[in-house]
Parts: sequence; structure tokens; C-alpha cells
Amino acid sequence: MNEFDLIHRLQRALCPADSPPDGSIVVGIGDDAAVLDPAPGQQLIVTTDTLNAGVHFPLDTPAREIGHKALAVNLSDLAAMGADPRWFFLNLSLPAASESWLDEFAGGLQLLATASGVRLCGGDTTRGPLSITITAMGQVPRGAALLRGTARAGDLVVVSGWPGRAALALRQFKAGEAIDPADWQALVRPTPRLQLGRALRGEASACVDLSDGLLADLGHIVQASPAVAGAELLLADLPTSASLAEQPQEARWALQLAGGDDYELCFTLPLEKRHGLAGWAQRAAVPLTVIGRLTSVAGMRLLRPSGGEFVLARAGYDHFPTATHYVD
Amino acid sequence: MNEFDLIHRLQRALCPADSPPDGSIVVGIGDDAAVLDPAPGQQLIVTTDTLNAGVHFPLDTPAREIGHKALAVNLSDLAAMGADPRWFFLNLSLPAASESWLDEFAGGLQLLATASGVRLCGGDTTRGPLSITITAMGQVPRGAALLRGTARAGDLVVVSGWPGRAALALRQFKAGEAIDPADWQALVRPTPRLQLGRALRGEASACVDLSDGLLADLGHIVQASPAVAGAELLLADLPTSASLAEQPQEARWALQLAGGDDYELCFTLPLEKRHGLAGWAQRAAVPLTVIGRLTSVAGMRLLRPSGGEFVLARAGYDHFPTATHYVD
Repeated sequence: MNEFDLIHRLQRALCPADSPPDGSIVVGIGDDAAVLDPAPGQQLIVTTDTLNAGVHFPLDTPAREIGHKALAVNLSDLAAMGADPRWFFLNLSLPAASESWLDEFAGGLQLLATASGVRLCGGDTTRGPLSITITAMGQVPRGAALLRGTARAGDLVVVSGWPGRAALALRQFKAGEAIDPADWQALVRPTPRLQLGRALRGEASACVDLSDGLLADLGHIVQASPAVAGAELLLADLPTSASLAEQPQEARWALQLAGGDDYELCFTLPLEKRHGLAGWAQRAAVPLTVIGRLTSVAGMRLLRPSGGEFVLARAGYDHFPTATHYVD
Repeated sequence: MNEFDLIHRLQRALCPADSPPDGSIVVGIGDDAAVLDPAPGQQLIVTTDTLNAGVHFPLDTPAREIGHKALAVNLSDLAAMGADPRWFFLNLSLPAASESWLDEFAGGLQLLATASGVRLCGGDTTRGPLSITITAMGQVPRGAALLRGTARAGDLVVVSGWPGRAALALRQFKAGEAIDPADWQALVRPTPRLQLGRALRGEASACVDLSDGLLADLGHIVQASPAVAGAELLLADLPTSASLAEQPQEARWALQLAGGDDYELCFTLPLEKRHGLAGWAQRAAVPLTVIGRLTSVAGMRLLRPSGGEFVLARAGYDHFPTATHYVD
């Protein structure tokens, strides 16, 4: 398989001939660049994430899971902006071109792309250590994007799903322990919360997706919002799956607050809009849980059920820690 | 330096505080995704290219040159579409975070970004083998993009600059031979032909940039254009720098026709528009040379000065050749 065979194989899998036409794609794969026609009155939302073998996923991860996750982490960013996903670009570096690996990879990617309404419009294939970069683009009506810096003190802090499950699955996987299948799915096949993001347009005061860990990502909202100084979270209110409930309490809180890799949404909501929560949860088919509120007092306070404060040692994932070791 | 220091360092270098404001960037770096406001009546042009250490550049390449080239190869694709460059995204995988490497890399990138009018709007930094993916976006008035599939038999074939110089410099570098400084610049600091691309809007019938080699890239126009079956090139008319003129004739033709990595433009021009060439060359400050014409006869004919036909063994660069070796 040479480079052109490889590109054609990807194109066959990712741009099936029976796809309905999409007038927004004037030129897709096959020219020097794509030509896209965004809808009038819409703003563009653009995000890009790289997954490296051995850093973001174990070397022996099935290709189908890599394909899914490479797109999912990008769609999760679009979800956090409240965007309608439209187009994506794939840069694939491969140490060798195996047809079966490529078919599995494209299969995992395509299933999520079709379900999410995004189309492949271009990319690049190169020889190199296994690495996948996806750039995903979407649209929002002008001014409707969900940002980080627009929260206000007093707003509720809400999360979707059960943050901490992906980190629990990863820890159990590394230790060779039994893993709850739903936790494993959360780790290897996260569901980008696109419907939830769209439902929150004009409702949430700020929104982020959970990739670095709940506390670190909520910290981004706090730091970016001039009208907020801190947050107060009630640990008793953290959404807790059966598997997380089996963990010792402080270990559980650490997973829930700093676990990372969840790709759930964390958003803030003016008090008077809380009545919407049940409806959005139903539309997006994911539980939504109020876990605290933003404050005008500096710092992140983590309140134990007893009322005392819990102090967390490590707040999130850092790709370039000061120490020389990093997660493999 | 941790991940956030690294991002801030890149941001300081690539989004200097004294840059004039750009209203099209509603939200740049620092949220889950960028929010962009394309101008009404314009189509989006999007391209993305990856450079891997040891594949696309030698491991000991100065960081400043890597930064320049990573952006230049993408801007060259925008140039080939006739686009006005606007925004770019940077995905940087680094084995270790060295401040001096990063400053040099960002310096090379920023110099070209400023000169070309593109702004960094986001990206991703990860731990991994050195690899740079840039996604560049531009705009063209609706319907004005220069495509590959719109050429017609009888159109002239025109190239900018001196294709073959980059390949000559690479060959001499590998052999430890003396290199003409202008050839070295063509290899390590190619100039994307943005002004030329813009000048060709509404004029050229098709356009590509030269990355795989003149013959392979012209072949893309021939294959994509239903109204064209082949091309006839006059080898005596290939633009030949003093350094290329020193090469044995057939070796020189091979460099000029299949060298790759030139990032010049190859475009086709209806005969009646040839009067524009001198003006476009002057505006873009690069020589333009008519080297042949498109035909309705299948195949690429390479005519020697004697009138006989020259047959080239290898037509361009393939990242995944059927054989197991590839260029390092």
C-alpha cells in the first residue's frame, strides 16, 4: 500500500459514496486545501487535539478505539462551546501502513463522525511514530458560543455524567484489576456531549469540557471570569457511580475531582435557570448534577459532608511536569 | 517549564501584546476552541500539514527553520488556492520542553506569520516524538478559489521560481557537498507564493503548489481536469538556476521534474491571458516561466531540445512506498 492507496482507503471509509451531499463542502479531499461555505450569520468554532501512542493511549490499544477517541476529544471541545459540529481534518502519522489497522481505525472514527454529523474534508498522512491530530470545526449562531470567562459569583456549578469513572478504569487497568464495563467505555469510547452543549446555548453562563480533571477545568472558568473569585463544591453531591462508591472516600474524591479524561461537560448556571436542568438532561440522555456554586471569595473550597474542608494534593494532568517523569 | 508555562511562552511569542486587534478572532487561545468570524461573502480555505522529525527534516535542524517551514508548507497550500491567509492552529509534540528550543521555533514561525498576515488562534501541546502539525485557514471571495480540476486542453503550463533547487540542495547536503546559498534557502526557508496565488484569482484555470515534484503535481491537475488528457513540456524551457545549470542534463531534468519540496506554484493559463504574466511576476517578485501546455492526448510528454522524448523513472515522493525503505 503506497501513500495514495492509503489516502484512497481512508477516503473510501470516511467519505462513503452513499453519504447525502453536503452543500457546505465546496471542495473536500483532493485539492491543495478544502473550500467550505459556512452558513451566513454563524460564527466558526475550531479546535484541534493530538493523541500520541504511548502518551495518550497504550501502544496496544485497538485501532477502532483510537479512531473513536481521536475524534471524540475534539467533538467534546465543540460540545463545550455549544457548537453544531460540521467538518473535520485528519493528520495521521503511521510507522507502517497496515490495511487492517487502517480499516479498524477508520471504522471507529466513521461511526462517531456519522452519529455526530461531521464530515472529513482533508488532512495529511505521513510516515512517523503513531500520532493522530484531528482539527474539528463547527458553527454557532453569532454570539451564542459558550465561553469560560462569562460566569458570575452565585452561579450553580453543574456536571454531566459521572466524572472520575475514566480515571478509575485507567487505574484498575494498570493494576490488572476488574473494571466496570461502563467505566471502561467512559475511558475508551467517551461520548462527546454535543446535544447537551447545544441545549445550553443561551442558558449556561460558562462551560468547559472535562479533560484535565474537574477541579482544574472548573479552575479555568474561575480564572477566566472577572466576576468570579472562587468556588465551593459539596463533596456529598458529586455524582457517584456504583463503581466509584466502592472506593475509599478520599481516593474516590481524588478520582472525581482530579481524574481527567472524562469528556463530560462542567457548566455554570444562573440560579433562576435551574428549572431547565431536568429537560436538558433528558434531551441529552445524561444525568446533570449540581455540585456547588461560584463565589466571590478567592479559592476552591471542597466541603466534606461534615462541613470540614478537604485538601486535594494534585489538581490535574500536566504534560510537562517539572519532574522528569510523566504518565505513559 | 510545565505545560501551562509552555503554552504561555508560545502565546507570548506568537500573539505579541502589541499586535493590532483582529476583529475576526472573537476568541483565540484559552478556551475549549477558537471562535472566528469569517467575512460575509467569503468561502473558507482550510489546509493542514504535519512535519515529523527525521522524516520531513533532519533531527538536528535548527528550531527556527522548523518553525518557518511548518508554517510555510501550509501557507503554500493556501497560496495554491488563491486564498488570503487569516488564522492558524499549532499542534506541537515535544520530547522535552526546552525554553531555548521553543523560543527559536516560535521566532521562526512568528516572522513568517507576521509577514503573511496569519494569526495563531489555538492548538495543542503534547509530550511525544518531535512533530509539528499546523492547520491554516484563509478566505477567498465566493467561487474564486483556484482548483485543480478546472484546466482545459491548450492552456499554458506555468511555474514560479526554479523548481529543483530544493532537491539539489538536499542532495548536496546529504553528500556533504557545497550548496548554493539560494538553493539552501529554497530548501529550509521556502517562500509561500501568497501574492502570486492572489494575483491568479480569476486568471489561472488551475493551480497547485509543488511539494511532491513538478511532474507529480502537474499530474494532479491533468487527472482532476475532465477537459484535459495530458501535457507536453519543453525541457529546454524549464527555468534553470546557475546551480542547476551546472548539473549533468538528465540529472538536472530529474531534479526539476521530480525533485519535490519546492513550494513554488504550478498553474495553467488560457492562452489569451498570457499577457498578464509579466505583471504578476513583478507583483509577486518571482519569475514565471511557461514550460509547456495541456493537451487532449493522454500522457505526459517531456520533449528534449532535440525533439525526442525523455522518460523519467521516478515521478515524486511517496511516504508509503511499496518497498520498505523511505527517505530519512
